[in-house]
Amino acid sequence: MKDLTQTDADALIATLGRRAREATRVLAEATAERKHAALVGAAEAILAAGDEILDANSEDMRHAEEKGLTPAMLDRLKLDVSRIRAMADGLRAVAEQPDPVGKVLAEWDRPNGLHIQRVATPLGVIGVIYESRPNVTADAAALALKSGNAVILRGGSESLHSSAAIHKALVRGLVSAGLPADSVQMVPTRDREAVAAMLRAQGLIDVIIPRGGKGLVGLVQKEARVPVFAHLEGICHVYADGDADLAKARRVVLNAKTRRTGICGAAECLLIDRGFYDRHGAVLVQDLLDAGVEVRADGALAAIAGTVAAEPSDFGQEFLDKIIAVKLVDGIDAAMDHIRRYGSGHTESILTENDATAQRFFSGLDSAILMRNASTQFADGGEFGMGAEIGIATGKMHARGPVGAEQLTSFKYLVTGDGTIRD
Amino acid sequence: MKDLTQTDADALIATLGRRAREATRVLAEATAERKHAALVGAAEAILAAGDEILDANSEDMRHAEEKGLTPAMLDRLKLDVSRIRAMADGLRAVAEQPDPVGKVLAEWDRPNGLHIQRVATPLGVIGVIYESRPNVTADAAALALKSGNAVILRGGSESLHSSAAIHKALVRGLVSAGLPADSVQMVPTRDREAVAAMLRAQGLIDVIIPRGGKGLVGLVQKEARVPVFAHLEGICHVYADGDADLAKARRVVLNAKTRRTGICGAAECLLIDRGFYDRHGAVLVQDLLDAGVEVRADGALAAIAGTVAAEPSDFGQEFLDKIIAVKLVDGIDAAMDHIRRYGSGHTESILTENDATAQRFFSGLDSAILMRNASTQFADGGEFGMGAEIGIATGKMHARGPVGAEQLTSFKYLVTGDGTIRD
Repeated sequence: MKDLTQTDADALIATLGRRAREATRVLAEATAERKHAALVGAAEAILAAGDEILDANSEDMRHAEEKGLTPAMLDRLKLDVSRIRAMADGLRAVAEQPDPVGKVLAEWDRPNGLHIQRVATPLGVIGVIYESRPNVTADAAALALKSGNAVILRGGSESLHSSAAIHKALVRGLVSAGLPADSVQMVPTRDREAVAAMLRAQGLIDVIIPRGGKGLVGLVQKEARVPVFAHLEGICHVYADGDADLAKARRVVLNAKTRRTGICGAAECLLIDRGFYDRHGAVLVQDLLDAGVEVRADGALAAIAGTVAAEPSDFGQEFLDKIIAVKLVDGIDAAMDHIRRYGSGHTESILTENDATAQRFFSGLDSAILMRNASTQFADGGEFGMGAEIGIATGKMHARGPVGAEQLTSFKYLVTGDGTIRD
Repeated sequence: MKDLTQTDADALIATLGRRAREATRVLAEATAERKHAALVGAAEAILAAGDEILDANSEDMRHAEEKGLTPAMLDRLKLDVSRIRAMADGLRAVAEQPDPVGKVLAEWDRPNGLHIQRVATPLGVIGVIYESRPNVTADAAALALKSGNAVILRGGSESLHSSAAIHKALVRGLVSAGLPADSVQMVPTRDREAVAAMLRAQGLIDVIIPRGGKGLVGLVQKEARVPVFAHLEGICHVYADGDADLAKARRVVLNAKTRRTGICGAAECLLIDRGFYDRHGAVLVQDLLDAGVEVRADGALAAIAGTVAAEPSDFGQEFLDKIIAVKLVDGIDAAMDHIRRYGSGHTESILTENDATAQRFFSGLDSAILMRNASTQFADGGEFGMGAEIGIATGKMHARGPVGAEQLTSFKYLVTGDGTIRD
């Protein structure tokens, strides 16, 4: 859809941006209690508006079916009573988290008597661009609000009615607690030009969080003039080292690939040390085959019955499916070289009982998350104990790894003297 | 100067960028001891190359005089024995700072037995674009190296020879300690197209730090596709509240304006509460006049003998000179409104004995640095105890306030399990 001119889209986003900026004045000084009340109020409003939200979702589903969306996409879009309840629970969980704003991150005294504090502040106005899942509307709003930010949401066109109904309920909750309705705004059009306008809204939007597939990420990287919490693909690797424990390795490899294949923390590539393979044979590959995974095997591994020969393009690919690329490597250095070349900086796990080897993996690689003897499926804000997340940032600026409320803050310095002057 | 085509400039920066990326592999794993040795070696090399550096500087000075640079610009460019010694001392001071890389920023355990650490890492490749001061070459290199980053320096065309000689000495120090020469590279051309190429070098340069005047900052904001640590003007305000202590207020106002007028932490605007003025009269303004400051006074204050009437454009202006804009305001709210409208988010100071008013100032404003009863001239990494700084960031992403070695790091998560899988 594209009817808006660039000028119209810029004007629309400028209006939303100015309202958001106004709201930040109130939000930045809102007490923890008031934000808590707003989030709890929003949870109640979501439950109270359940029928309304389900009706809106039915309309979205009808359009989506007409458009011939895939079953996986339809499933992401679909809401039911339990998913609505989960949204309300998510809002309540964020409400119960500690308030990150105003937290003293560091403080110290100077010899001249100055006392310096570094204190967490909101970032300002956050833009979230996402695709079909309507629950992101509630999750993103909750985390932004908790951290004292105003948010401008641009949901997928498929979920427009669902998101609008959820948004309406959220605003009811905010307003009931005395926070500005403009704390959470939705871009009221499916027009793609509005996305481009958000990406170039310097000074109006402080940071953009894109949640979506390759197309969105590519557009963001090409067009964004506003800072972005990059959220690239999750091309996660598991490396079974020569010193791996067999039982742990079997457990972790299977879980990392098969627990859920559609999440960004799912393993997409298994690297097996040649020493491990010489000792234990095809067992890791066989486990995957037995679990119904399509194993795209490189070199000698392709001789294992049931595998298919890997193409070069299978490495560095995010399958998000019951598919895995596997390869033999000669030790930790070859494994790290492969990961540096093909990884996306998301999450990698080493399976080893050797502390020195694990240490080399931890210091030699620079992914957002590095694991030892643990499933890559733990790459998740909830599993990290952060309560909720708005995504996994694979960039290195500001936020990295799971982005929760704390990562949506900046800081300022508060300096107290007593008529103190500089020599 | 502009002879390079866009394509040539991009190719040049791509070459530097690839070499820098290679160097980061070694730097990221370099021990604190090795980086310390490299910085001390660089300090020694700078001293040993003193004559060479002074000769190069004479050549730059000759060109600069021919071009008719202002005395202030010539002074910034000029090197002498004591300035060279100061550069070496700066390198040694950074060498003695704690190494920020590998620092465990947080760690915790999860109920499932996972142990999670958040550990500081280098950012990667830093681009520094600066103007005439040749010492920035050494300062920027030192801070980048300390934090395990490779750096690509693009100094002002006026200081090309001086910076090249300093760079040569720095590299000698690095190499003597076994670090790659490409850890610190200089763009080998005065061509402005190279600056533009740096600004669009996504994937090659991880962050750009621009140090310079309005022209550079404007170019950066317009053209940058690489993340930037924004470094805007320092339009610093001092607000003398009705509850200010007179003696402290006099001391701080005078120091904030006059100690050094050319630094970004110098006060550019004094706001006086009407209650303070009714009680104490023109004393703060008179002190400034007595110190030879040109006082551009708004409204009633313009009646004070010796002041000149302020133009609207005097508010929100960075004079960097013995000039100040002054204005009467009705209390803290009016002061904050003025600062929000005219400030640049750098540093503001309130003079008050009233804790509640100070608290409102601290929570209601969102500048990088807020002070109470202290001179804005303390807005400086050294004064904050950070050792050295590469500038004062006025943006809110990643770094804010004085940017030292610690602010040039990112982090990663290290997760240790024991064959741990997710349910």
